[in-house]
Amino acid sequence: MDEENNVDNHEVDIETDGKETEIYSRPLLVKRVNTTSQIAIVGANVCPIESLDYEIVENELFKQDWRSRKKVEIFQYVVLKWAFALVIGLGTGLVGFFNNIGVENIAGFKLLLTTDLMSDHKYYKAFAAYACCNVGLAAAAAALCAFIAPAAAGSGIPEVKAYLNGIDAYSILAPSTLFVKIFGSILGVSAGFVVGKEGPMVHTGACIASLLGQGGSRKYHLSWRWLRYFKNDRDRRDLITCGAAAGVAAAFRAPVGGVLFALEEAASWWRSALLWRTFFTTAVVAIVLRAFIEFCSTGSCGLFGQGGLIMYDVSSAKATYSGPDLLAVILLGVIGGIFGSLYNFFVDKVLRSYSIINERGAAFKILLVVTVSLLTSCCSYGLPWLVKCIPCPTDQSVSCPSTDESGNYKSFQCESGYYNDLASLFLNTNDDAIRNLFSTSTKKEFQISSLFIFLGAVYILGIITYGIAIPSGLFIPVILAGACYGRLVGRLFENISKLDTGLFALLGAASLLGGTMRMTVSLCIILLELTNDLLLLPLVMLVLLISKTVADSFNKGVYDQIVKLKGLPYMEAHAEPYMRQLVAHDVVSGPLVTFSGVEKVGNILHALRTTGHNGFPVIDEPPFSDAPELCGLVLRSHLLVLLRGRTFSRDRILAGEEILCRFAAFDFAKAGSGKGIRVDDLDIEEEEMEMYVDLHPITNTSPYTVVETMSLAKAAILFRQLGLRHMCVVPKSQGRPPIVGILTRHDFMPEHILGLYPHIKPIKAVKGLHQRETIIAIVVQSISAMMMQMMSLLKLFSSA
Amino acid sequence: MDEENNVDNHEVDIETDGKETEIYSRPLLVKRVNTTSQIAIVGANVCPIESLDYEIVENELFKQDWRSRKKVEIFQYVVLKWAFALVIGLGTGLVGFFNNIGVENIAGFKLLLTTDLMSDHKYYKAFAAYACCNVGLAAAAAALCAFIAPAAAGSGIPEVKAYLNGIDAYSILAPSTLFVKIFGSILGVSAGFVVGKEGPMVHTGACIASLLGQGGSRKYHLSWRWLRYFKNDRDRRDLITCGAAAGVAAAFRAPVGGVLFALEEAASWWRSALLWRTFFTTAVVAIVLRAFIEFCSTGSCGLFGQGGLIMYDVSSAKATYSGPDLLAVILLGVIGGIFGSLYNFFVDKVLRSYSIINERGAAFKILLVVTVSLLTSCCSYGLPWLVKCIPCPTDQSVSCPSTDESGNYKSFQCESGYYNDLASLFLNTNDDAIRNLFSTSTKKEFQISSLFIFLGAVYILGIITYGIAIPSGLFIPVILAGACYGRLVGRLFENISKLDTGLFALLGAASLLGGTMRMTVSLCIILLELTNDLLLLPLVMLVLLISKTVADSFNKGVYDQIVKLKGLPYMEAHAEPYMRQLVAHDVVSGPLVTFSGVEKVGNILHALRTTGHNGFPVIDEPPFSDAPELCGLVLRSHLLVLLRGRTFSRDRILAGEEILCRFAAFDFAKAGSGKGIRVDDLDIEEEEMEMYVDLHPITNTSPYTVVETMSLAKAAILFRQLGLRHMCVVPKSQGRPPIVGILTRHDFMPEHILGLYPHIKPIKAVKGLHQRETIIAIVVQSISAMMMQMMSLLKLFSSA
Repeated sequence: MDEENNVDNHEVDIETDGKETEIYSRPLLVKRVNTTSQIAIVGANVCPIESLDYEIVENELFKQDWRSRKKVEIFQYVVLKWAFALVIGLGTGLVGFFNNIGVENIAGFKLLLTTDLMSDHKYYKAFAAYACCNVGLAAAAAALCAFIAPAAAGSGIPEVKAYLNGIDAYSILAPSTLFVKIFGSILGVSAGFVVGKEGPMVHTGACIASLLGQGGSRKYHLSWRWLRYFKNDRDRRDLITCGAAAGVAAAFRAPVGGVLFALEEAASWWRSALLWRTFFTTAVVAIVLRAFIEFCSTGSCGLFGQGGLIMYDVSSAKATYSGPDLLAVILLGVIGGIFGSLYNFFVDKVLRSYSIINERGAAFKILLVVTVSLLTSCCSYGLPWLVKCIPCPTDQSVSCPSTDESGNYKSFQCESGYYNDLASLFLNTNDDAIRNLFSTSTKKEFQISSLFIFLGAVYILGIITYGIAIPSGLFIPVILAGACYGRLVGRLFENISKLDTGLFALLGAASLLGGTMRMTVSLCIILLELTNDLLLLPLVMLVLLISKTVADSFNKGVYDQIVKLKGLPYMEAHAEPYMRQLVAHDVVSGPLVTFSGVEKVGNILHALRTTGHNGFPVIDEPPFSDAPELCGLVLRSHLLVLLRGRTFSRDRILAGEEILCRFAAFDFAKAGSGKGIRVDDLDIEEEEMEMYVDLHPITNTSPYTVVETMSLAKAAILFRQLGLRHMCVVPKSQGRPPIVGILTRHDFMPEHILGLYPHIKPIKAVKGLHQRETIIAIVVQSISAMMMQMMSLLKLFSSA
Repeated sequence: MDEENNVDNHEVDIETDGKETEIYSRPLLVKRVNTTSQIAIVGANVCPIESLDYEIVENELFKQDWRSRKKVEIFQYVVLKWAFALVIGLGTGLVGFFNNIGVENIAGFKLLLTTDLMSDHKYYKAFAAYACCNVGLAAAAAALCAFIAPAAAGSGIPEVKAYLNGIDAYSILAPSTLFVKIFGSILGVSAGFVVGKEGPMVHTGACIASLLGQGGSRKYHLSWRWLRYFKNDRDRRDLITCGAAAGVAAAFRAPVGGVLFALEEAASWWRSALLWRTFFTTAVVAIVLRAFIEFCSTGSCGLFGQGGLIMYDVSSAKATYSGPDLLAVILLGVIGGIFGSLYNFFVDKVLRSYSIINERGAAFKILLVVTVSLLTSCCSYGLPWLVKCIPCPTDQSVSCPSTDESGNYKSFQCESGYYNDLASLFLNTNDDAIRNLFSTSTKKEFQISSLFIFLGAVYILGIITYGIAIPSGLFIPVILAGACYGRLVGRLFENISKLDTGLFALLGAASLLGGTMRMTVSLCIILLELTNDLLLLPLVMLVLLISKTVADSFNKGVYDQIVKLKGLPYMEAHAEPYMRQLVAHDVVSGPLVTFSGVEKVGNILHALRTTGHNGFPVIDEPPFSDAPELCGLVLRSHLLVLLRGRTFSRDRILAGEEILCRFAAFDFAKAGSGKGIRVDDLDIEEEEMEMYVDLHPITNTSPYTVVETMSLAKAAILFRQLGLRHMCVVPKSQGRPPIVGILTRHDFMPEHILGLYPHIKPIKAVKGLHQRETIIAIVVQSISAMMMQMMSLLKLFSSA
């Protein structure tokens, strides 16, 4: 275990204040991405990360504060908790609405302009206008991203997921990120990219929640004494969980789906109490959105129109289904699984390639965005020329060709009485294209060739668009492609199935979503809330189960893949099987830096300067105890506050009382991001270096410990379940120093463990298990599907 | 700490095999209910309970098994996991359907008989027939309960909840309980009691799941080698979670609601993987039910008719709402909170009184059931005479008075062209009564006086019926009463509100459910799935939040109350505040029984006979180690298996190899309920008592430990989060014995801790906090409601 390994393994968290990052030079960082994972690539920028700590630091200051806590303080805390939930709901609802209005108006204006020029047969001019608008909007979004907040690029869901797992990547929830996320998303979606606003909405919700949890701003004189209750990772985690739920609720107008999304996909820790609070937040979002829609229904929102805010009502189609429909559903599930895992595979490859381009600087980022935008414009405008015009339906109730900026029947180059079905999909906002694909009782609206062209185009565009430097959600591209092949399968089964083609589109979308995102219950609820048809539930469930099962046999979900790609040390809820072969002591490494209960200031300062450790064990030695014993754990941030207070003594004596008088627990509360004290901020004089400071008042006397012979798997479960940042490993036998080492998140990462013990070959066995599980799950599910069919036969017999 | 305290505190779990229960005489048990809680009152019988152990016992046998595990075994395990999920779904679906057919046919026959006699003006004869049917059915249900399975009485949800928290009450999931639960529920609901089948369905689902997890039956030669994978508490917990979800799904035909119920109310531990499996189970239930309904729609199910299986479709009513509606909703929420908490209060009182009666024996149980049945019959038949007949609606599409056994318009004593609205509610099955209350576009169908009478009757009958010795669910009585006052409030607001009266009934039901059960998201989804109307979501959410908030300020949810009343040591997810003032060592008590690594057989046998402990620390002493050190923990059940194998040696030597050869890990798997080895089954000869046995192969070398100075709150969190049964407390300083004591579930119970430290007065502070939190939540929620109103004003202005 050499010196580098010490930094590497023992405690690799880097302070966000940037001080400790100096010890890592750039090339090292890039190299390390492949070995351990203490740095993250956010928006193609290499950023420091910080682990979060959900343990309650029970030191003497905390206990003193706990005993003296007044009722009014509890009152304030609870008021704030609920008020923040309300504010998050309101804020996210507002942003969601603002986003929709923005997109509908900007994109609507662009589309109207194009359509007007088209109807005057100025085809080249129309393309020029269309492409210019797109490129301009795209460049603006890219510029925002590149210059102001690189962390705002991409979906944001992986980062929020990582945050809720305990990894705070630099500036991922900063105000600048929020700003860029909101406006970048509006510009990006308006620019006609095949991207959604759903991921960005989740990120936006999380940013709003994080802003509230910052404890105000000293710079703008906005710090309020009440806000100190949220200056810890636990409360911030709860807020951000609410924010993520609110984001989904605002994006899909799906309050229950939002709660379930937070539960199933985003959060790593969950409590019943949180269910109630997230539920309240999403209810507020739903109500805000409904109020605004009512407001807009009077026509005061420009091109936003009557409908707005995605809601694809398919409830008019009757959902009765029989044997052949189930076959179609199973087929859709399998296709979704295969296409979904392929999608993930390509997204991963594209992200890796783009990160090389994006790394070169802002200009390259913008250039990439402009290139993709031009390509998208060419596809959207060029491909509709390939298909022939279709005569309008004879039904008088529909306007064909449609006259406004959305609508099912775009005239494009066609003469009066005809429409271009591909243009109805391409030259529309993504929301309207989905609405067209989901539309019921319109079996023949789209030609098979058009659907094939559109499927190919959105599938490829979706893949190459994710990863460019704009806020981009994955839901909409996936729904578009899925709905498209859903309709195609519907055409295939049109003679033997009674299901409406619109419902086929919905099921197709469900299957591809299941194949990429790998969620089950939350996706199901989101889709049902989107389409307002509960009777489809069993079919949607089945298709999701099958597609997830099929896709799981090939690779991981898209968000998990991105988390891994970005090098975020995500802790899984379960322990890997090979961890049972190791004990806690096996992964402890490097010399340990410990402090004495009453320690010399110089030693502390030296340790803080030369290591990146965030927690230091405190050991009581004679004369303060009979033999050396573990007193507890002290945190770097607490040490910095204590040193800044300069409560030193010349002699090695207990000075706890004095410190308890001078400091309050609040002084040690975790600062907002970028507001912590740095070691260099300390102004310790030379003579003070030889003085002593009593660490007892700030030592967490109840750190979670494991014996060194504890199985690593069980230690990992303990670490993950309790949300720790440091875990002390204590010796089994007596007569040795009272602590063996400290385990952190990184010590449980497969890369680290397998680096130490390369003879352990775990991946194959696990993968084998995985594939087997998958195959079996499919078999069982197919059997059950067959049984259902038998039941419908039963019915036939009984009626005969 | 006297000897009694030792039994009391240190390790109070009692083996279900009944051996150790001998040391508790009956009066002691009854006394103890009030102090600590190691025994449970199930169905008014005092029963032993057993804690469940979710820790993986990592001993040498396990590790040997883990290393040699073949791929085919993993394959078998996964096949079984999914096959069991399928079987649970199928089984619960079948039972749910069978239950419905049974109730509809039995109750339908009874009602037809009564109606026929009524139409011949033989009123006394009709009452006699009605009452006799009811009493007969009730007595049959009570006899089943009293003589075969007392544990089947009541809802079953509290017991399932406790099981999933880690408390196995005697015979709560036994096959006899399953049998009685199914048939008792059919008989009880048919007997016209104000009870539901929902709680019993959840219990039924859990019983089916538990049966599957028993590992077959040696008696009937049904033991299958594969089944051994489920012979542990972890896998059984997962199965039973699936079963509980399937139960709700079958009862309400609400698959997503079922999953959420399991998550929010039933389960104490949850993983993502489980979400997928429960989801699959409930999807199977939904599909089975749908298939059967299609089968029955051809008329082959007797009186089951076309509809069947509760589904109250209110989607025909348009859910547009404005300011005044919100006021009504808030009013409903407040009423629901108050009525709900009152309901819980009275249920608690009634349960306590009934337990005195029920304790006296089977005859008293049956007598109580018959009394309540007679009272119910009198109310149902007598009260409709109080109201005057109403002329039938002029609308020709409805049949009035209705001719079949269900229907909205019962003729009762009225002449042709008139109907008795109260009889439509009373002389119907509960499902049909709810359907009538929920029926839309029928504002004037029920008179206000009728609704008041019905509300009073079902509210009181619901309370006095719960607790009698029949399987009885709480959902239906609560929905009935809630829907009733919902309609009343609807009548109150009829001039200013645009909501349909049927929707008011739905919101009323939601409010009372929220007030009694205190669930949020799961109730919301269940109601939406029941009524098939997603647009009501924001209103249902609001009403649930308000009623839960109001009710929480008075008492706990009804299931939590029953769990407490039954003396089940339920572990809450959070630590109580006063626990921060104590350390782990403070609650350790009683002399500790430890074994040496190689221990004399006689010592082990003596310890097993004289204590009720289930876990014993094993300490390695010289010559096996340099100084005494904690080797691990050995379980009573494992010791019994080892002793039965008689691998003893004359000398004190390590004989691990021999034991590892003779035994397989499977031999130590947890037996199904009632199948474990008893101490008396061991046939140890006198000379063997002096021999030695090596405990190392069966010692769990990775027990979770805490240092004695660990804060009790943090120890409790560790214990609860990881689902432990035993937690070792180790000394802080060196030179002492390597273990201080063992903490079990009971050591964390408030009764125990506050018994030891009576000066700690925690309840008031907590309650104060609780009330405050409640008040604030209401205030915040009201503010948000007002804001919504302002938004609708906004809309008015903009349209003006």
